[in-house]
Amino acid sequence: MTIAPDHPALHVATAATFIERLHERWRQGRFVCVGLDPVCERIPEAILEGRTRGAAMLAFNTAIVDATAEWVCAFKPNAAFYEAEGIDGAVALAGTIAHIKRHHPAIPVIYDGKRGDIGDTNRSYATAAFDVLDADAATVHSYFGQASLRPYLERADRGVVIMTSNSDPGAAEFQDLPVGDAGEPLYQVVARSVATRWNGNGNCVLVVGAPFPDKIAIVRREAPDLPLLILGIGAQGAAVAPAIAAARDRNGEGMIVSSSRSILYASPGMDFAEAACAAARRLSEEIAAAR
Amino acid sequence: MTIAPDHPALHVATAATFIERLHERWRQGRFVCVGLDPVCERIPEAILEGRTRGAAMLAFNTAIVDATAEWVCAFKPNAAFYEAEGIDGAVALAGTIAHIKRHHPAIPVIYDGKRGDIGDTNRSYATAAFDVLDADAATVHSYFGQASLRPYLERADRGVVIMTSNSDPGAAEFQDLPVGDAGEPLYQVVARSVATRWNGNGNCVLVVGAPFPDKIAIVRREAPDLPLLILGIGAQGAAVAPAIAAARDRNGEGMIVSSSRSILYASPGMDFAEAACAAARRLSEEIAAAR
Repeated sequence: MTIAPDHPALHVATAATFIERLHERWRQGRFVCVGLDPVCERIPEAILEGRTRGAAMLAFNTAIVDATAEWVCAFKPNAAFYEAEGIDGAVALAGTIAHIKRHHPAIPVIYDGKRGDIGDTNRSYATAAFDVLDADAATVHSYFGQASLRPYLERADRGVVIMTSNSDPGAAEFQDLPVGDAGEPLYQVVARSVATRWNGNGNCVLVVGAPFPDKIAIVRREAPDLPLLILGIGAQGAAVAPAIAAARDRNGEGMIVSSSRSILYASPGMDFAEAACAAARRLSEEIAAAR
Repeated sequence: MTIAPDHPALHVATAATFIERLHERWRQGRFVCVGLDPVCERIPEAILEGRTRGAAMLAFNTAIVDATAEWVCAFKPNAAFYEAEGIDGAVALAGTIAHIKRHHPAIPVIYDGKRGDIGDTNRSYATAAFDVLDADAATVHSYFGQASLRPYLERADRGVVIMTSNSDPGAAEFQDLPVGDAGEPLYQVVARSVATRWNGNGNCVLVVGAPFPDKIAIVRREAPDLPLLILGIGAQGAAVAPAIAAARDRNGEGMIVSSSRSILYASPGMDFAEAACAAARRLSEEIAAAR
């Protein structure tokens, strides 16, 4: 009897924590993160036929996941696209994560819900992300400070992905405000706070925006050892090479390069999964050339 | 044939927008907001028996809502407590909001999910809050700036409740950082930005923390006409009178005073609903004495 390499019985053999799994994928040269942000209006007709919208999202996602898994270091479902479909979407999100855990246990899942509340409430959010959905990491807002995020930070086996310098041009309104005596931009203070004080369990990740390599470089300087989640590659139009050059750590690693629409919708037809695989591979090769 | 005053056919007769409904309740002297944050471990045994956890949360919530509606200006379910129960919790949240809409259509519902993403993604979050759940208002993070929140801000009939100065002591870590040449705390800059530039549709609300009346006073000065959602009353231990004195607008109104645990769990027994009503009334009277 042979056991397939992705059999759940082998799950325990994979690296245990989020960060360890990430490092394992980096060692294999995998830095792409596929953002699983399905929109029914862009899912091929043949997938939608005879299915509820949630069931179609799940069918689309599992095809994308299976087609791109070889090229990625993580998958990142964004809660917004599931919540917009109500209960049906909630089932699709849970089913998508369960599929990844079952069939691709080596690849960590980042639940992108961008939450941030008082500590007591964050305890329930952390339970929802890490225990109910069984995600390996979750995105959070830093505005309420370190104390409020303790329920996330204390989960040493899970990743805590903190909004720092984002890909939206308008995000500069507050995140770039000069703060303190030195007049440093707020995002720099956030990056340094996380790197020097919040990361006691070594499970923090910082979010940066690919369109702004200069800001990525500042974040990398403040946090030389932290993984950076890079947003804005692909449909948001940012160039790959300058972002990678600014984001890589001293080992040429330390990057989670997220792309969503340009992979999910690489083809509008029923060859969408093959096209997604090709798009993920192309991005992976671009990163390899730049790092 | 008579139509009961809470019949949905009369729904159209109530004030149309979130802000108008709020003003209508204020005119009736109602400023309490009950935070619907149910935790199964604190729900009476008799409610839990024979029900799923989600069904018990819904039964508990509807009893609380019906018992306290007379004394409130809004209800505020916090997403964390529902998401921690998975799909069952999502059904309880949808059912809770549907119950309020059906039986208490004059009372607005604030969906407390504290979201904040890029503009494109916020469009899906706004759909989820306002169209799928049919909440009248939603809480959001400001970190990505005004442009990102356009999908919320452009919904003139709904409220956009923006994190400003929060009730957690640790929240001072970033929100109190001195900004720019004037060295004003970040939360003050957020309050002024919202009041002077974001509030074109007159649908913005600012969040302040009851334990810090001095900060509430600064926010009120920057935003003389905006409703303030006051958190931290009750179980979080803040005194009512100083918070109200700092928060009231020139009409002695402009306040949404949220309390959760001290109303929900006013009694551990099967008289929990009556006890909740009494606790809401007491808080309402305390506010009346202080405003």
